[in-house]
Amino acid sequence: MSKIVDVMRVHSASTTSARDVVAIEEPLEIRLHGRPFSVIMRTPGADRELAAGFLLSERVLRGPDDLGTIEYCSDVIPGPGKTNQSNIVNVTLADPSRAGALLDAARRVTTNSSCGLCGRQTIESLATDVAPIAVTMSVHANALTALPRLLREQQVVFDQTGGLHAAGLFTAQSELLDVAEDVGRHNAVDKVIGRQLMRDALPLSGMILMVSGRSSFEIVQKAVFAGIPIVASVSAPSSLAIELADEMGVTLVGFVRGDGFNVYTAPQRIQAEA
Amino acid sequence: MSKIVDVMRVHSASTTSARDVVAIEEPLEIRLHGRPFSVIMRTPGADRELAAGFLLSERVLRGPDDLGTIEYCSDVIPGPGKTNQSNIVNVTLADPSRAGALLDAARRVTTNSSCGLCGRQTIESLATDVAPIAVTMSVHANALTALPRLLREQQVVFDQTGGLHAAGLFTAQSELLDVAEDVGRHNAVDKVIGRQLMRDALPLSGMILMVSGRSSFEIVQKAVFAGIPIVASVSAPSSLAIELADEMGVTLVGFVRGDGFNVYTAPQRIQAEA
Repeated sequence: MSKIVDVMRVHSASTTSARDVVAIEEPLEIRLHGRPFSVIMRTPGADRELAAGFLLSERVLRGPDDLGTIEYCSDVIPGPGKTNQSNIVNVTLADPSRAGALLDAARRVTTNSSCGLCGRQTIESLATDVAPIAVTMSVHANALTALPRLLREQQVVFDQTGGLHAAGLFTAQSELLDVAEDVGRHNAVDKVIGRQLMRDALPLSGMILMVSGRSSFEIVQKAVFAGIPIVASVSAPSSLAIELADEMGVTLVGFVRGDGFNVYTAPQRIQAEA
Repeated sequence: MSKIVDVMRVHSASTTSARDVVAIEEPLEIRLHGRPFSVIMRTPGADRELAAGFLLSERVLRGPDDLGTIEYCSDVIPGPGKTNQSNIVNVTLADPSRAGALLDAARRVTTNSSCGLCGRQTIESLATDVAPIAVTMSVHANALTALPRLLREQQVVFDQTGGLHAAGLFTAQSELLDVAEDVGRHNAVDKVIGRQLMRDALPLSGMILMVSGRSSFEIVQKAVFAGIPIVASVSAPSSLAIELADEMGVTLVGFVRGDGFNVYTAPQRIQAEA
């Protein structure tokens, strides 16, 4: 997930040759029944999980029952440039008859890296097709304030490169279920959700999604599709993230720093008293 | 660019009701000759510039000569939800006969928020079609280390919300030419480049692009399309950003902090000695 590069280090008018560790970014091509569906820029690793989570966000998969197989392509002839077998995954659906219509739709409704909605061709295509999250869940404030440290402890590559985002799934008792790192915030979320989808563990009714960056509309949207009731981040949410979280019954927590945080929506799931 | 929301503030087992300022995120629909081309999640403001920069990245515009008009739609009937006139811009090309083919291509090659290449349907579609940047330019180290502070001074909304990325164009003498803020890193870059495109000021041969976040492949790609020889950021570059910068002759600078930074590619444009 990282590589070493040569670098000229400049410091107070002196220069030295040095080596630096940088996060790897490479394209992943996702095929649906052998036909190109989308390309995502991502950090290699958990590619099948990323594809599963991405296709859940795209509503190609509406749940684990829709998924047939996810495999690296074995029939690819390496060409010029970076195209090779390890950067292409092929996904089949349990019901192959849906694939044709979805591929046609992908041509009408343009898709995005791993963002659930940007790149769509009309604003009308942004609406979600799922019910609000009605899960009763109670999380103590101390459990939330522990999450940034627990997530950071898992960020092996970030410590080396400073270049990766992380997403983690935690229980209400701050127990880590899964974590993923990626150059893209959306990808990290897709990887952890995709892995649970492949394990047939959706909806993630008792879980907290913790992200290292900001909370945007698409991060909340991905949580909604996965049935996650609480989304927390160390940074700020956007206005549309708050609006969607409010509408869909998601508890949106921001600025988790030190022993405090802000709750923007659905505060009934947060217990602050000692 | 920001709005006030109610928030429950939790701190050391006590809760208070408070108000918080959050960055606004809303969809912008870009139409080409009246037909839907793409939707970008963005912070409102400089929408026409964003559309111009985005279409440059998408190679719909290859330069200012390709641009006809960019206007907010005036014929839109406000429907349910957030669809309204101020979230839709219509772009016309100087040569209208190109529009049909480009709209058809948009259906084949899926586009992305404001990322120049993710979302494309095949890895082969990632290649650029422009020549490397051969500009001779000399920047003193002190001019580069001054940029983070100068950029931050312009970030009015970030100071309130902590939720916005910024991109700035600077001369080799650290003079600010333009700055933009957005919830999306790519959008902030598209806004500053788009504005220069609309002013017929491309290529930006003497300019430094400074971004608040990390440098990814797409950020470097946008700089290449705009003819910018130096890209600097306060944080880490990705492996593919370095590879593209190397290939296209862009000087890529990272971790601009305090009185130092790292130069990853084309160091001949950096003067370190006092």
